[in-house]
Amino acid sequence: MLPEWVSQNCPDVSAVHREAALARQGQLTKPTGALGRLEHIAVELAGLQQTKKPRAARVPIIIFAGDHGIVAQGVSAYPQEVTIAMMANFAAGGAAISVLARELGLGLEVVDAGTLAGAPLAGVVTDKPRCGSRDFSVEAALNPSELAFAFECGRRAVLRAEAGHPDLLIFGEMGIGNTTTSAAIASALLGVSAEEIAGSGTGVDTAGRARKARLVDAALALHRLAGASAEKILCAVGGLEIAAICGAIIAAAQRRIPVLIDGFIVSAGALAAVRLNPSCQPYLLPSHQSAEQGHRLILRALNVHPLVSLDLRLGEGSGAALVLPLVRLACALHNGMATFAQANVPDRPA
Amino acid sequence: MLPEWVSQNCPDVSAVHREAALARQGQLTKPTGALGRLEHIAVELAGLQQTKKPRAARVPIIIFAGDHGIVAQGVSAYPQEVTIAMMANFAAGGAAISVLARELGLGLEVVDAGTLAGAPLAGVVTDKPRCGSRDFSVEAALNPSELAFAFECGRRAVLRAEAGHPDLLIFGEMGIGNTTTSAAIASALLGVSAEEIAGSGTGVDTAGRARKARLVDAALALHRLAGASAEKILCAVGGLEIAAICGAIIAAAQRRIPVLIDGFIVSAGALAAVRLNPSCQPYLLPSHQSAEQGHRLILRALNVHPLVSLDLRLGEGSGAALVLPLVRLACALHNGMATFAQANVPDRPA
Repeated sequence: MLPEWVSQNCPDVSAVHREAALARQGQLTKPTGALGRLEHIAVELAGLQQTKKPRAARVPIIIFAGDHGIVAQGVSAYPQEVTIAMMANFAAGGAAISVLARELGLGLEVVDAGTLAGAPLAGVVTDKPRCGSRDFSVEAALNPSELAFAFECGRRAVLRAEAGHPDLLIFGEMGIGNTTTSAAIASALLGVSAEEIAGSGTGVDTAGRARKARLVDAALALHRLAGASAEKILCAVGGLEIAAICGAIIAAAQRRIPVLIDGFIVSAGALAAVRLNPSCQPYLLPSHQSAEQGHRLILRALNVHPLVSLDLRLGEGSGAALVLPLVRLACALHNGMATFAQANVPDRPA
Repeated sequence: MLPEWVSQNCPDVSAVHREAALARQGQLTKPTGALGRLEHIAVELAGLQQTKKPRAARVPIIIFAGDHGIVAQGVSAYPQEVTIAMMANFAAGGAAISVLARELGLGLEVVDAGTLAGAPLAGVVTDKPRCGSRDFSVEAALNPSELAFAFECGRRAVLRAEAGHPDLLIFGEMGIGNTTTSAAIASALLGVSAEEIAGSGTGVDTAGRARKARLVDAALALHRLAGASAEKILCAVGGLEIAAICGAIIAAAQRRIPVLIDGFIVSAGALAAVRLNPSCQPYLLPSHQSAEQGHRLILRALNVHPLVSLDLRLGEGSGAALVLPLVRLACALHNGMATFAQANVPDRPA
């Protein structure tokens, strides 16, 4: 059983603040609508944050890492040891997300939510029910208590971050094999064949991709996941870092903290979160559309429209971090531009 | 006659630095190609800047403003006084581009390249051969010496900026009526009907757009611009701020300074620049694709692939400024990430 808090309602968006922000956008010294999607971001954020001045200054990044039993089936272009090595690289400051966090002035926490690491790593929070998920091509990846633990792990990370009064949160992930896990989760939740979802991940070729799709379709049949609940799907074919992200998204939204959604894997977690608790949906803010082919389908199901499409396929939360400056600038424009009246600029005839 | 420098060759891209950057991208701790278009930006910039460490730290913005005689034909949703009022707003810090420059730590110079302002404005560089262009629906917008002056105005602005050792330059524009002027330039240069190019600008309706397109087509016939040179086109239907941008782009490229190309109007200037001096093309870096319908066609002709598409239609250089953080982060990732060897992360099997 998932913890009781998972299904508790998230607060409503403030219609008053949203409307006030919309009215302000119409008074700023620019043609109506000329800032396009940046206007929408500022308006939505004002409603979510219940404020006149939307902010995206304090945006901690939390990376959840996990290992995946399905790797035994040869689904990844990289060896499984990379998961642990990259956790160390995150903490040491050499990974893409480390560079982005530094450049953008963001805190970065790395959580071992279920890797194969036998001992805690320096600079990493260890919070896992077991080392790695089971191979879902032969058995359920997680049992219900392991799944519940992973949700609590996600919530605990949000509670730690909450102490710093974050404006938004970014969740990232690391886990060799986790595009296969995410493809399985998304295929089951969306009821589409794995062929439409499974992509090349870190770089498998066409044959590798076909192999991933076959494994996923077979697992969905093995575990009888047609029409199954998100909880059952996460147990059968899930991963610990993805379940942690799912719990973290719900916990953040319950605390009125919007989440800038990263790529394919985080989006698969978000889709499961929305299925478990639809009231978290308004708190999902768009970032990018990745090169991973299934991402588009997941974003469409989430009703989240990506701001950029840069052929990224790295994960780590890097896509969300890269888009953060646009969100920050959307806020700065909303809060800092002069109105027609203030600047004494003639508006268009009414 | 245009000044002699206009046709002088721009320096070649450094193939050595480009290749070295490409090799480095393959060694960084990420799947090959996983940073998508950001990898290309860093690699191209390394070649253009002849460096191991591409940079986008110092990026001055220069806004050229001009007025347009064609406004007499009722082509804009806003009154002509807005051009001068917005110049004052740029200088006072209330406009979108002012906010963006402040947030991004960029210098902002405003050049009156040909507005109707009768006296110099505080905080604005006045450098114009006349006040406003003529109405191109009845006569040539500029004579050859006015056009040459505008090119020199653009070059002078680049020379002022060069003193600060810029890594890139952003050119912006302001001019009520200048989407009509740009549509005329682009239609003539591309040989397509104005119907395919003319957009809604600051917000004219469908009838207004059709009116713009008819005016442009009629002007192209009046001035016999089918197959005409870029110089003749700029005289017949050009604008002073657009001609200044055209000169500035060529002058920047000749000094090995890449230019982050803004929206529809700056891109029309860039297209004329490439026709006058094709060797400046590699120095044009992409930013966004605007909501103005003709922008896509111009970018395709420039062989510049926009990084984002956010339904912007503001001008001022705002689209380029909004994309600058992505270019900066592309550089930071290229320069700051650890290699597989440095981080002791296993690479994929060769």
